[in-house]
Amino acid sequence: MTDPTTTTPDRRPGGRTARIRAEVLAAVRAELAESGHEGLTMEGVATRAGVHRATVYRRWRDVGGLLVDVIEAAGEMDWHPPDTGSLRGDLTELNEEIQESLVERPSFAVALMAASFHSERAARAQSRLWEERYAQCEIVVTRAGDRGELPPGRTDARAVLMSATAPVYHHVVLLRAAPDPRLPERAATAAVAAAAAGAFLVRAGG
Amino acid sequence: MTDPTTTTPDRRPGGRTARIRAEVLAAVRAELAESGHEGLTMEGVATRAGVHRATVYRRWRDVGGLLVDVIEAAGEMDWHPPDTGSLRGDLTELNEEIQESLVERPSFAVALMAASFHSERAARAQSRLWEERYAQCEIVVTRAGDRGELPPGRTDARAVLMSATAPVYHHVVLLRAAPDPRLPERAATAAVAAAAAGAFLVRAGG
Repeated sequence: MTDPTTTTPDRRPGGRTARIRAEVLAAVRAELAESGHEGLTMEGVATRAGVHRATVYRRWRDVGGLLVDVIEAAGEMDWHPPDTGSLRGDLTELNEEIQESLVERPSFAVALMAASFHSERAARAQSRLWEERYAQCEIVVTRAGDRGELPPGRTDARAVLMSATAPVYHHVVLLRAAPDPRLPERAATAAVAAAAAGAFLVRAGG
Repeated sequence: MTDPTTTTPDRRPGGRTARIRAEVLAAVRAELAESGHEGLTMEGVATRAGVHRATVYRRWRDVGGLLVDVIEAAGEMDWHPPDTGSLRGDLTELNEEIQESLVERPSFAVALMAASFHSERAARAQSRLWEERYAQCEIVVTRAGDRGELPPGRTDARAVLMSATAPVYHHVVLLRAAPDPRLPERAATAAVAAAAAGAFLVRAGG
């Protein structure tokens, strides 16, 4: 994953290679959260991880390589969307998870977004991760349809998810407003109301 | 506005002080759009504006001062929210204006957002500007209520505006997806459907 040309023999999960990667990426997350991507250096990461600098340079090459790998590692996490039994419940729980990741201080998620404004590679890796996460979440809308919570016809699952989650990112990350504990549920409720009214139905030819 | 302690006599609109400010801020916008806030320097701005470096240092002090003033100048623009005769029309037009400002290349709006991740002062100035703009837009929801487009009771105008506009920012700025020409209208339509269904009604005690 990090460097397919490496001939290190021990690449099984739990092996030395995996352990070093885990230590280095934990250090990247800690450094990012503490001082942002501007404070991220190969030396700082190696020191914090207790790994030889030469190893870090050989496997990740530069700070951009570390950023891409830490984002890819987030995508490898065994994450599942909520399954509470209602669309409103699922979207509220999803929003609460998102809001929590954005308001914690220091926030690794916000540091990654800041980094992606300055590194094309990090931006692409982050777009891929988000694409994957939204794709994973489509099941939430599919299940709601199966339960009869949506009008007849095909509802655009991605549009429902965007409508529910975007206000949380907007409020916290872009507007930098004080977190509103009721926003996760309110944004979820609004998206459900719009979906129930057919606002996200895919029109023929649309 | 830029430095209340300055004793320059000629501060009337159209005077020399105002002209220099206009030239310097135009240079800041051009530099930001071309190379982002990381490429912004006092020297580059002075050269592009054709203004003495000493003047730029005296009046704006540092790059943070330039950023704050360019954001404040955006807030001084004579801007009015759309008034098309329907809530859906107004929110669609607002979203189209937002999307246009975000997808143009280079985008001054995106450069400002990137800068605000790195300058506390720029972030605060941007939050104030956004707060003002959302406050200005509340009239769009008030007018919809007066036209009978909303259910009885008080609709939270800010929540409607956030619900309508957040997906556009989210899609373009955070997800970095290709601009979707139908998104401005679709996000507006969804917000209107949710508002009509009472999803943004302010509950007693809430």
